[in-house]
Amino acid sequence: MAQSADLGFIENPLDRLHPLREDAAALAGLIARDDARAFVFAGDRPLLAGSSANGATALFAHDQAVRLAPDGEEVFLGLDGTRRPVLARRRAPIEDGEGWTGPEVGDLRALALSGALPAAEVGMMALAASMLGWHANHPHCSRCGAVSQMRIGGFRRDCAACGAQHFPRTDPVVIMLVHDGERALLGRSARFPAGMYSAIAGFVEPGETIEQAVARETREETAIAVGRVSYHSSQPWPFVSSLMIGCHATAASREIKVDPAELEDAIWVGRAELAQALRREGPIKVPPSIAIAHWLIRAYVSGEV
Amino acid sequence: MAQSADLGFIENPLDRLHPLREDAAALAGLIARDDARAFVFAGDRPLLAGSSANGATALFAHDQAVRLAPDGEEVFLGLDGTRRPVLARRRAPIEDGEGWTGPEVGDLRALALSGALPAAEVGMMALAASMLGWHANHPHCSRCGAVSQMRIGGFRRDCAACGAQHFPRTDPVVIMLVHDGERALLGRSARFPAGMYSAIAGFVEPGETIEQAVARETREETAIAVGRVSYHSSQPWPFVSSLMIGCHATAASREIKVDPAELEDAIWVGRAELAQALRREGPIKVPPSIAIAHWLIRAYVSGEV
Repeated sequence: MAQSADLGFIENPLDRLHPLREDAAALAGLIARDDARAFVFAGDRPLLAGSSANGATALFAHDQAVRLAPDGEEVFLGLDGTRRPVLARRRAPIEDGEGWTGPEVGDLRALALSGALPAAEVGMMALAASMLGWHANHPHCSRCGAVSQMRIGGFRRDCAACGAQHFPRTDPVVIMLVHDGERALLGRSARFPAGMYSAIAGFVEPGETIEQAVARETREETAIAVGRVSYHSSQPWPFVSSLMIGCHATAASREIKVDPAELEDAIWVGRAELAQALRREGPIKVPPSIAIAHWLIRAYVSGEV
Repeated sequence: MAQSADLGFIENPLDRLHPLREDAAALAGLIARDDARAFVFAGDRPLLAGSSANGATALFAHDQAVRLAPDGEEVFLGLDGTRRPVLARRRAPIEDGEGWTGPEVGDLRALALSGALPAAEVGMMALAASMLGWHANHPHCSRCGAVSQMRIGGFRRDCAACGAQHFPRTDPVVIMLVHDGERALLGRSARFPAGMYSAIAGFVEPGETIEQAVARETREETAIAVGRVSYHSSQPWPFVSSLMIGCHATAASREIKVDPAELEDAIWVGRAELAQALRREGPIKVPPSIAIAHWLIRAYVSGEV
């Protein structure tokens, strides 16, 4: 259950005001408040509101956000740590060559990594990115194909044609550090930077437990059989909307056979080499501390598991 | 991480053959095999194939399943424990008064509860019910509204109109027994049978951890503040397609204030009373052993947490 302050997207002060979302008049009152703030995403990329007196921020005054994204849908995220209403709006992507002269266009992953924004803002932006991404991919009713309408601040879409209600989607993903006591199993995807290896991961499918998903994904990707599984911690991952479920697992076999459709390589790495990688030394690179894989490796190296 | 054999839907011998799903010719070969079997659902209700020499079963010979559900979509679940291909098909619901003379129409929850079918079949049926339910609610592309097409044995739907790919959905749900050492917090929904109380539960939302969802849902439904959260076990719940994430949590406050939109009542119940309820004695009823809430309560009563 350990959670580190450095893990990305987990510091989130929002009071989501869940029951209040359903009260359209109350919601409209909150949105109209002078202190209402909003994130603005151009496609998947957040705009930066620049340095304020208190430091860098991606929160715009709400009326400014409306001008920056006049046609986009808007979601209501909740009240922030100072009880300001916080919203999020999405506008068309801004292409590099189009001569945009508005606010700087950022990258959510890079912002989480750099620490340039307050961790609480990055956490709220994870919710914003997941919600806006869901709406962008769900303007139509999946049951009848009609255009659906956003409701309760964006936490539901209703279809007037067939009556279906649709809710934002969160995809559970297992990510597991499999170990045999002396060594841990790491894999690398072809899209990773050179030298980078990480814990094995995959989507939980319908009809299986977390523990079964850990075993199935490990077997599918590396042919390694898994014994005991233990939960470590979790993290929202907003690319697009995953719930990362971090586990450790003991290995019940040793011979790796990689599925080339999933991984480019998988290897056993000893504790000492992992400790070196965490210090950013040696030939193997591991994910940075914003990623839950980093903390799974750290817990293993420290002997917690 | 404890998992009991009595917990519903967790015994599942399927080899899902994930990489092979993508090979249409290989898949067709498996489906054409003489030993291929299939579940048939009439809407949400499984048909029963009757008593075989080896006992009751809901698995039909594949050609018989095609006759029972000639127009329905078909999903490929994998190979069962004896390496037979197993599929699932869905047909129109069968209404009570329509004079149906075919196989008996069952109820998945009642079948899990009664133990009338092998546990492995009930586990495979959980996957079948989730997959068929997802297809029934997703014939159209949520991005453009066009009719989409089932692919890779039903584990994807592709939209020929806009190119979108859609994957089966699994909704993570936290279910938590909150306790203060001496007593545990139980709630009852208006739709529960008389006297029944259970652990608090709710959907994980985008942008939050499991631990944050436990705290938020408990606070929203009962106003109780939560301290330390610890993971216990998980369970697929096929009504429609949830991943139940079972936790224990310590209470950081005592005064209950129920949200009437979510719960009819919430109460603190002592260990002795819970032990009585597990023995099916006393005024309070708790969920049966197919439900993860039962095992969260049992672990608390036994002093495991």
